[in-house]
Amino acid sequence: MKKSLKVVKIGGNIVDNPEALGRFLHHFARLDGLKLLIHGGGKVATTLSKELGVETKMVEGRRVTDYETLRIVTMVYGGLINKTIVAGLQAEGCNALGLCGADGSLVQARRRDAAPVDYGFVGDPTGVSAVTARALLDAELVPVVAPLTHDGAGNLLNTNADTMAQTVATGLSGLYRVELIYCFEKPGVLRDVDDDGSVIPRITPASYAELRGAGVVADGMIPKLDNAFRAIDRGVASVVICHADHLLTPGYGGTTIARE
Amino acid sequence: MKKSLKVVKIGGNIVDNPEALGRFLHHFARLDGLKLLIHGGGKVATTLSKELGVETKMVEGRRVTDYETLRIVTMVYGGLINKTIVAGLQAEGCNALGLCGADGSLVQARRRDAAPVDYGFVGDPTGVSAVTARALLDAELVPVVAPLTHDGAGNLLNTNADTMAQTVATGLSGLYRVELIYCFEKPGVLRDVDDDGSVIPRITPASYAELRGAGVVADGMIPKLDNAFRAIDRGVASVVICHADHLLTPGYGGTTIARE
Repeated sequence: MKKSLKVVKIGGNIVDNPEALGRFLHHFARLDGLKLLIHGGGKVATTLSKELGVETKMVEGRRVTDYETLRIVTMVYGGLINKTIVAGLQAEGCNALGLCGADGSLVQARRRDAAPVDYGFVGDPTGVSAVTARALLDAELVPVVAPLTHDGAGNLLNTNADTMAQTVATGLSGLYRVELIYCFEKPGVLRDVDDDGSVIPRITPASYAELRGAGVVADGMIPKLDNAFRAIDRGVASVVICHADHLLTPGYGGTTIARE
Repeated sequence: MKKSLKVVKIGGNIVDNPEALGRFLHHFARLDGLKLLIHGGGKVATTLSKELGVETKMVEGRRVTDYETLRIVTMVYGGLINKTIVAGLQAEGCNALGLCGADGSLVQARRRDAAPVDYGFVGDPTGVSAVTARALLDAELVPVVAPLTHDGAGNLLNTNADTMAQTVATGLSGLYRVELIYCFEKPGVLRDVDDDGSVIPRITPASYAELRGAGVVADGMIPKLDNAFRAIDRGVASVVICHADHLLTPGYGGTTIARE
């Protein structure tokens, strides 16, 4: 029987908030069994860009990554956020090891085409190195993964953390029974974004089509749900979207993504 | 019989120079057998500090690390430099995995006492996690280590890369036959700092005392040589100080540190 592996994604709004991050790390450290954390970037990169006089350009909610911006996200995601999380987890007794997709080519990627939109140094994940993942998990190390990859020609690439989490979960589902858990600052997918009590407990492909059609699910939630359905279609055992504070709550109290 | 392991330290002046770094990585990727790279920081941290209006304070050639400076070195050492090296090595076909001393507690440390000089968030290495090192080396991953550690209480610590290299070499000498190679921008320890032809081929404890007494060896070379002798005293099989371009030259063409 396959061992269980929890792949947890923590969003940028939690990463940006030291108190919320501290609570999350306290919970994550106490999660049983094999686990792996993927973190987003958040506003620190935007703040640092401003301080350095580098303009932040977004197209359809995604950061355009020119050379200067790539240097900034490499510093912030790969350095500051990644190592701060590692030191926090180590203090909680969790033997975390921080890396990014480029390290041991944990997450392979290709640079996104320059058309229709030239996002610059942005990568789309194509696969996972099971050798690298197993080397860490077998040694009871807890990988903490920053959303960067490389193109094989010496360039780093800025990479969407939700997609990386889906790729890692999918890529390791042949070796492990993978649970994919998207944690963020809301208690799940909400029917009414202003009402935390309106969590939709379960979304299937059919209800997803309805929710999109009615405009209930929109904006940043669409790529997250697209990733969630892709994971469930490609062998991931379960996918949940929940509040970062509910990681130790049975069932996570969030939205479960279901095949039917 | 123990396997061989090469622990290579690359200095900040090479890291700062893209052409020199590229040449070094090309050579390092071709080095036979198990290997591990430790990199220095260099001037990028000082440049970024200036850009962000954070004052750089040095005492006896070492950086005083206040909270703002710690954030900067975490971004530069742990992020920018570490991941740039990893992407460069991956492009050379070397399966590099970047981490810092905090990751998997690879290098354990304690925060330096605030007296006689308060260096702030600075750590002195105390040991090495053989579990973490072996997990990577056994999987044929090539660890690339940034000079940061943690205090076990959630704080990262700025750590001297020469000392980290010595600690890693020493700490793994029970498991491997370790060669420690300090690479920098000079061809070895020089009798005359302005004459690259004046390399001292071999230094013993006795000749070291003479060279220090005569002022031939001074400044930054003293802590480097102190680390070299500490390594050789504590089980490291060989220690060499050489030019970054000579990594594939038999004997490295530099200065060998010898017990007698």
